[in-house]
Amino acid sequence: MPLITFKPSGKTIDVPAGTELLEAARKAGIKIDSPCGGKGSCGKCIVHVLSGIVDSDSLGVLPQTAVADGYVLACKTKVLDGQITVDIPEQVGRTGGKFTKATTEDFNLIRQELLPERWEYEPLAIKWMIKVPPAKIEDGLSDLDRLSRALKREWGECEIIYSLPVLRKIPDTLREKDGMVTFTLVNDAKRCYVINIQPGDTTVNHYGVAIDVGTTTVAVELVYLFLGEVVAVRSDYNDQIDCGLDVISRINYAKNPERLEELRKRVLNSVNRLIKQAAESHNIDLNDISSGVISGNTAMIHLMLGINSEYLRLEPYTPTIRESPFLTAAEVGLDINPQSWLYFSPHVGSYVGGDITAGILCTDLATDSKDISLFIDIGTNGELVIGNSDFMLTCACSAGPAFEGGGIEFGMRAALGAVEKAEVDPKTGRAHYWTIGNVKAKGICGSGMISLLANLYLTGWIDASGKFNRQMKSKYIIVEGRFAKYIIVPAKESATGKDITISEMDIENIVRAKAAIYSACNLMLEQVGMKFEDLSTVYIAGGFGRSLDLEKAIVIGLVPDLPREKFHYIGNSSLMGTYMVLLSKEFREKQLELARKMTYVELNTAPAYMDQYIGALFLPHTDINRFPTVKKMKDDFTTKGTK
Amino acid sequence: MPLITFKPSGKTIDVPAGTELLEAARKAGIKIDSPCGGKGSCGKCIVHVLSGIVDSDSLGVLPQTAVADGYVLACKTKVLDGQITVDIPEQVGRTGGKFTKATTEDFNLIRQELLPERWEYEPLAIKWMIKVPPAKIEDGLSDLDRLSRALKREWGECEIIYSLPVLRKIPDTLREKDGMVTFTLVNDAKRCYVINIQPGDTTVNHYGVAIDVGTTTVAVELVYLFLGEVVAVRSDYNDQIDCGLDVISRINYAKNPERLEELRKRVLNSVNRLIKQAAESHNIDLNDISSGVISGNTAMIHLMLGINSEYLRLEPYTPTIRESPFLTAAEVGLDINPQSWLYFSPHVGSYVGGDITAGILCTDLATDSKDISLFIDIGTNGELVIGNSDFMLTCACSAGPAFEGGGIEFGMRAALGAVEKAEVDPKTGRAHYWTIGNVKAKGICGSGMISLLANLYLTGWIDASGKFNRQMKSKYIIVEGRFAKYIIVPAKESATGKDITISEMDIENIVRAKAAIYSACNLMLEQVGMKFEDLSTVYIAGGFGRSLDLEKAIVIGLVPDLPREKFHYIGNSSLMGTYMVLLSKEFREKQLELARKMTYVELNTAPAYMDQYIGALFLPHTDINRFPTVKKMKDDFTTKGTK
Repeated sequence: MPLITFKPSGKTIDVPAGTELLEAARKAGIKIDSPCGGKGSCGKCIVHVLSGIVDSDSLGVLPQTAVADGYVLACKTKVLDGQITVDIPEQVGRTGGKFTKATTEDFNLIRQELLPERWEYEPLAIKWMIKVPPAKIEDGLSDLDRLSRALKREWGECEIIYSLPVLRKIPDTLREKDGMVTFTLVNDAKRCYVINIQPGDTTVNHYGVAIDVGTTTVAVELVYLFLGEVVAVRSDYNDQIDCGLDVISRINYAKNPERLEELRKRVLNSVNRLIKQAAESHNIDLNDISSGVISGNTAMIHLMLGINSEYLRLEPYTPTIRESPFLTAAEVGLDINPQSWLYFSPHVGSYVGGDITAGILCTDLATDSKDISLFIDIGTNGELVIGNSDFMLTCACSAGPAFEGGGIEFGMRAALGAVEKAEVDPKTGRAHYWTIGNVKAKGICGSGMISLLANLYLTGWIDASGKFNRQMKSKYIIVEGRFAKYIIVPAKESATGKDITISEMDIENIVRAKAAIYSACNLMLEQVGMKFEDLSTVYIAGGFGRSLDLEKAIVIGLVPDLPREKFHYIGNSSLMGTYMVLLSKEFREKQLELARKMTYVELNTAPAYMDQYIGALFLPHTDINRFPTVKKMKDDFTTKGTK
Repeated sequence: MPLITFKPSGKTIDVPAGTELLEAARKAGIKIDSPCGGKGSCGKCIVHVLSGIVDSDSLGVLPQTAVADGYVLACKTKVLDGQITVDIPEQVGRTGGKFTKATTEDFNLIRQELLPERWEYEPLAIKWMIKVPPAKIEDGLSDLDRLSRALKREWGECEIIYSLPVLRKIPDTLREKDGMVTFTLVNDAKRCYVINIQPGDTTVNHYGVAIDVGTTTVAVELVYLFLGEVVAVRSDYNDQIDCGLDVISRINYAKNPERLEELRKRVLNSVNRLIKQAAESHNIDLNDISSGVISGNTAMIHLMLGINSEYLRLEPYTPTIRESPFLTAAEVGLDINPQSWLYFSPHVGSYVGGDITAGILCTDLATDSKDISLFIDIGTNGELVIGNSDFMLTCACSAGPAFEGGGIEFGMRAALGAVEKAEVDPKTGRAHYWTIGNVKAKGICGSGMISLLANLYLTGWIDASGKFNRQMKSKYIIVEGRFAKYIIVPAKESATGKDITISEMDIENIVRAKAAIYSACNLMLEQVGMKFEDLSTVYIAGGFGRSLDLEKAIVIGLVPDLPREKFHYIGNSSLMGTYMVLLSKEFREKQLELARKMTYVELNTAPAYMDQYIGALFLPHTDINRFPTVKKMKDDFTTKGTK
């Protein structure tokens, strides 16, 4: 019986010869999407046969070159004999979005459903195979002349630009396979930049990277451009965090050229490490990665490029670049093909950057809808966008890194071992908690904090100001002088062997963060003369992991108390938008249009902001009537509790 | 009395206060051109006052910024008091051209008279000072937006491209002098490349280099672009000569990537050394050199760029590049401002390169003249161009490096200590010789060889086949077995303390070189159905030093026996043309037009060439009737001699 190994999970299964791969995967407990029900028509169940003998009938749906490279439809492929290894690309996220629980292990999901229905595949870099006629003594043409003519014949009139490393490859490459060569190109209407030239047909070896550079977290998606699919996602802390937790601290740290250079290298190290891990996990040559799109807040991108970011912080808060300059991987220091072009998502201002213009690409703000949407990206800074196809306002507030684990004693980002949900026993005060990956707890992530805080508040263990109720006794609440802290995970259950706790100071940080975001939403609405009720949709983006408990986010007053169906949790929308920009010129153009259209509101100079902020420094708000359903929940609980 | 020191000669002179600088220079024996006779109208007597107090009235003729920087007209400047240092730029060559003897010490002359009368100054890189308005919080513009808008306002709509090192300089530079910045730009109609940005007005610090890369000799001109003048010329052997004397040996040497890399580094070392020397001689910061034009034969340019040159040598003799790619100094490895753009003179084919398309820029071939011109560039290869404004034919012949000193035992290039002229005593056989710089002889250069060979032939010491007449005895002719050699400079007079000689083998090499050139001229004329008599002008280019003795060149049969007024010796025309290309877009466009217009004739595949060549292997030719004036000279001498 054939033995099939499925990568990357490593699951194996024995099936009779002749079994369909799709069925074999199901038997092994691996879900492969097949909306057409295995008829071979939807083309969604693509898998990569790495070794072993199979009988496939995938032609017609997949291009010949893909099939030759081992890509098949799982529903149209029968396993024959021996040992077979099949790679199931992490086409994660087909089940993500809208607060449903994702089923894949990875939490940085590409949500196919966030993509518009129709869009044209036109990635930043393309590969193109052409046949160049041989040199003739009588025509007096150079190698470059023949190459360029052949390219223009298929590609239309354009200026073609070769870098020196590419020029050096030309004479031998042209002659190695009788003039059959594959170009890797960046084409921007006015001209073609040749990134690479390889002998023969190498169009199937075509990768790109989508990179999200956050103040706290850096994420990389390795995209197989030939099929437009994500083959690996990796994320990690930004190595810069040793130099300051938030954007302002980083800018202050980079006050001299040596420090600026240090920060540049730190963030590059983080990104390059993730790219390397992603590429190695699928045995991909870094030289076959020939384009990259990078999104990040304005300061992160300035620091990554080694550009003095001090003027972002000083009035009048001027960034040096907003729209993407033309830069190569070699110039920037990214470890992919050195001639690769990098594209940077455009910034709106010093505090609303490319992560936001990428993020709103997956929302109705990028469509021609007249309905008003609010987009909230909760990261180290909180950024908001409000508007529709007619207008867009945006602002940033210094929420701080609390929701990403920064400034919280046992805080951590949404990774293995993070407490992501916690309920509180109203009687004993003991927490029931869930960790990411179901392993021993290491710390608590943003979604865990929201869940815990809401439940501590609803059960009365903390009051509206976030202080522990000294009247109620619990062995999980430890009062030390004027301060108290709460044991979420007792030492004996934790991965570290120490109590995992949350202190009143930690809670204060979280409350400040949520207050900054809520009051900014409020102010932005006031600026356009609207109320929360006027919003059709609220998009929440951020690195909260697989899911965000919306109900609890409302309880703590992070987001307004609106009908639940108006909310969409879209996870790391910056990374998703970056992937979209890598894949299609249409999205690049749309993103530029959006960035140019947005009006930046500076909160620092808005006098009403401080009042709004102070009003929001309570759970859920000083004015509980703004949160009627929370008031009801609280009242219900108190009634029940006193019964 | 003021003490004036003139640089670079170091000559000093005491003159009364109030003396004009022009007069002071004359008194010190330094010639400064002043065609207008000191009226201050021609603007030719520009000098640079480095220190000391002078009273100048140069405004009106010189721009204010130049005067502020110390550039004055010598005729309109009076010395006042104290110690004054004046630099006289090597505005060499105003007296050059047309076989007259140049008076400057340097032999690589810029011949102003080779420039067309009217041409527009538009160098490859320009400097442009603009005022950028300060950042405002309300307009939301980035530094780059403000810069680009300010630039476009003055420069017109164009795409502006910044490299990363320039981007990094922007934020501080913009703020250092209240938005007053100087751009260094390369502008090619479709876009502007920003090479540099500096605070304040730095338009006067603007330099470029014109580089001629020959197989044997490399020459560099450092050009002060602000005034369009050459400030220093340096030349030296190409460090590659250790790896082969001619182009074919170099291509063979570069047969593997390590060897190719070695040759690339060797030629770059030569060029960078000369640039450094030139810059240091005038205390110029290499970063202020922000453009370069490079001309060389096709193989030299391929090797300099590290591009496999093997296919130049193999049928169908295909170069990889003909027209200039867009490359920066950093990419190429040239030690000037790393962001500088380099422009390469276009090649016609594998054996007619950018040195020729640069060279013919200073001839009537670049005008709309209908007269037929012949251009002969005598270097390691001999290249010819024949034609007029309607047609142009070009070919190359392997003359070998004899005229540059290569393959000749005591051969050397036209540098200090080279015998450049030699007469021979008909009775004793003793040579009377002249050396460059009037110093002890080190060897013999091309013009010396021509002069010596012609005189040995006319006086009968050698016969038409280049062999010493064994019947005539002289203590300067030493016969060793079947071979003989001739002592040009006896040991006691030479710089090395050894005899400087020329052997029959050396003479054979020289004869082969001249035969290759003459027979190629002949063949090209035949191809267009013309005779030598149909030529209006014959331009002779090459590194022969200050002068070429035309009469003697005809005696040995290097050039045809035509009326002498038809000949123009134009020296290193490649360097002159390169300088022109650096200075004006007009010349770049003309050069491209000429390169595209030329038809390349491959001598290797022309059956008649070998016959022509063999016929030319005599002094002056097998058929003496082709050289009637030489025949007459010889007859006259013989008659006199026998009298």
